[in-house]
Amino acid sequence: MQAQRAMDDMTAAADGTDRPAKAGRIADVTRAADHLRVAWAAHPLDRAASRFHYLWLRANCRCAACLHPQTWERTIDSYALDPSIAPLGAAVEAEGRALRLTWPDGHETLIEAGWLAAHDYDGDVRRARKRSFRTWDAATLSADRPDHGWEAVMRDDGSLRAMLTDLRERGLAIVRGVPPQDGEVARVARRIAFLRETNFGVGFQVENKPDPNNVAYTALELKAHTDLPNREMPPGIQFLHCHRADAEGGESLLVDGFRAAERLRAEAPEAFEILTRTPLPFRFLDEVWDIRWRAPTIQLDADGDLQEVRYHDALTAPLDAPFEEMAALYDALRRFTAILRDPAMELRLRLEPGDLIAFHNRRVLHGRGAFDPNAGLRKLEGCYVDCDDAWARLRILERA
Amino acid sequence: MQAQRAMDDMTAAADGTDRPAKAGRIADVTRAADHLRVAWAAHPLDRAASRFHYLWLRANCRCAACLHPQTWERTIDSYALDPSIAPLGAAVEAEGRALRLTWPDGHETLIEAGWLAAHDYDGDVRRARKRSFRTWDAATLSADRPDHGWEAVMRDDGSLRAMLTDLRERGLAIVRGVPPQDGEVARVARRIAFLRETNFGVGFQVENKPDPNNVAYTALELKAHTDLPNREMPPGIQFLHCHRADAEGGESLLVDGFRAAERLRAEAPEAFEILTRTPLPFRFLDEVWDIRWRAPTIQLDADGDLQEVRYHDALTAPLDAPFEEMAALYDALRRFTAILRDPAMELRLRLEPGDLIAFHNRRVLHGRGAFDPNAGLRKLEGCYVDCDDAWARLRILERA
Repeated sequence: MQAQRAMDDMTAAADGTDRPAKAGRIADVTRAADHLRVAWAAHPLDRAASRFHYLWLRANCRCAACLHPQTWERTIDSYALDPSIAPLGAAVEAEGRALRLTWPDGHETLIEAGWLAAHDYDGDVRRARKRSFRTWDAATLSADRPDHGWEAVMRDDGSLRAMLTDLRERGLAIVRGVPPQDGEVARVARRIAFLRETNFGVGFQVENKPDPNNVAYTALELKAHTDLPNREMPPGIQFLHCHRADAEGGESLLVDGFRAAERLRAEAPEAFEILTRTPLPFRFLDEVWDIRWRAPTIQLDADGDLQEVRYHDALTAPLDAPFEEMAALYDALRRFTAILRDPAMELRLRLEPGDLIAFHNRRVLHGRGAFDPNAGLRKLEGCYVDCDDAWARLRILERA
Repeated sequence: MQAQRAMDDMTAAADGTDRPAKAGRIADVTRAADHLRVAWAAHPLDRAASRFHYLWLRANCRCAACLHPQTWERTIDSYALDPSIAPLGAAVEAEGRALRLTWPDGHETLIEAGWLAAHDYDGDVRRARKRSFRTWDAATLSADRPDHGWEAVMRDDGSLRAMLTDLRERGLAIVRGVPPQDGEVARVARRIAFLRETNFGVGFQVENKPDPNNVAYTALELKAHTDLPNREMPPGIQFLHCHRADAEGGESLLVDGFRAAERLRAEAPEAFEILTRTPLPFRFLDEVWDIRWRAPTIQLDADGDLQEVRYHDALTAPLDAPFEEMAALYDALRRFTAILRDPAMELRLRLEPGDLIAFHNRRVLHGRGAFDPNAGLRKLEGCYVDCDDAWARLRILERA
């Protein structure tokens, strides 16, 4: 598997908490016109020196008057500070473990060296501090399956952390032995956080229905896709729990959209680029809803790292890119589709009653084979939790 | 007020429904290598001619085999179509009101001329079809207040539509006479759609609390800000309903962040540009949550139009832009802050029991003055509805 920068987190260290930082000791400080140069005796990234603007240092004073001691919210009005502010004094204390700054109005700022090193912004630290993720294809995932047991996940925080780590790094976790009953999928999801409600409700049942408003509720094949791409922010973590699997067919398939995007970037950089900058119009329509949003197929963050894949031909309104770009857009979508459908990319698994898959809906695409609705019942129950809340839960578990 | 392009919608006309389009009649068609040139006898934007790729025409066939007749989802596998596809025949029918295409495999596509004209992509139609919005300052809003009555909004769909239109165009609606009791704000919000749950719950009470985890739950001043900027997608529509207003002070204030962004763009284009491209790290921390996201202060859509303002110094983690950009970033934030705090921008209003304000949380910033918690009770109840669902409701009301 390939290690990559993840995009939907901020620095692992620069978390704003007051937890003692792992390393960071100051050797010496030197004053320049608008910033302080800190020479390090120790630094988590082994830097020799870093520069910090006086304005930044004043804005990030962590005393009880500048940072609310209960809410951890900044109470100093930092965007109204005098930009020419400079300390009267800058002293290294506690054998390099702290820095004391004295400001013209007499205010004092005492900064722990570890905190300062962890929040260093001199250089491209944003990427250096990002969490990594690992992309997969059918073979690499099968060789190292993200399997978890229901009882352990429900009872033990370490097991829940392991499951969330798989979701975070690989976008997928499989939980075995979940009682195949209504409401159990929501219990697993609520171990992580509250559920994300959508126009389909707080949870949903996937079975063939009369008068469906969604192809998921038929017996038709569903090609790998993103759920609810027509929403401004499609759901983050999707949970699907199998209750009945009597019908022939209906096998589930999962594809790592980030791996597919990496392949497209390598094989056809121009196609990749078009898909990152061309918004596609998505929409869901029925008698009571008309929900629309535009977004590119592949979304990058400000550093150019993969952030999101949004792909669902069926819910895409007629493309409206300018005439001159339309042929290239279709070409890029065709290339990306071919990669997504490469059998080497597709993890196929037949869900049995009690199996639950949890996956990052904006990274891992999912689908299913057609089935014969007359040959037996196929029933899944599902729900969503937003990434914000899932990653928050993981961070809290990692604090322990 | 100033008319602008809105950004969070897709085309008003190209809505994917089968409603008869208002205009569009074909005079003649001419075949080119990979596209059809349609000369118009009538077109909603008075165009003389438009070009449509054969591939696009085939992908958007609206027959029951290509578009699911119940779910309106595309069932034809459009990204797997042969890119060199071309029709054997192209005939104008029904006095220019329809186009019939015959494909090499015998499939026939009958397209209504009005639908075709409404989905024209030859030229910059995306912007031409965007909904407009109007920005405001204290004076223009006070001269034309978006006031609505509770009984009408609850009973009459036309009144609800007027309220949603104010939210859509101005980012703000005020509802008078809402019974000042628990649960009434959720009843108003549910007239629109289901509620967006957050880490603060499905709804929340704003009153001064012991051991607050949020400055909103103190008696301190709150400068104009975006709620929950630390979430990947902060809530869309915020509802705040006043139950008690006995305390001195605590006056509410609202600022149109889009107007402020327009001013910044005009007054200091470099500062505007920095704020559109520099992600700021936001975070909320307490004992059970650690929720973080990075996003720029001003977010533009793919056309360069305003999409979102995200501003909340208190919840901003230490800035981590590269050293070389830090001073310019603080300068841009200081300029934007000065505009946001210009009294000419600030709508100040004292909420009385029964008053409810609804505003687009990612456009209109809100705050409040400090109050004396010992001088009487101040109590608001609030909740959120996502923009997706609010605008969907408006579209459905507009269908009637």
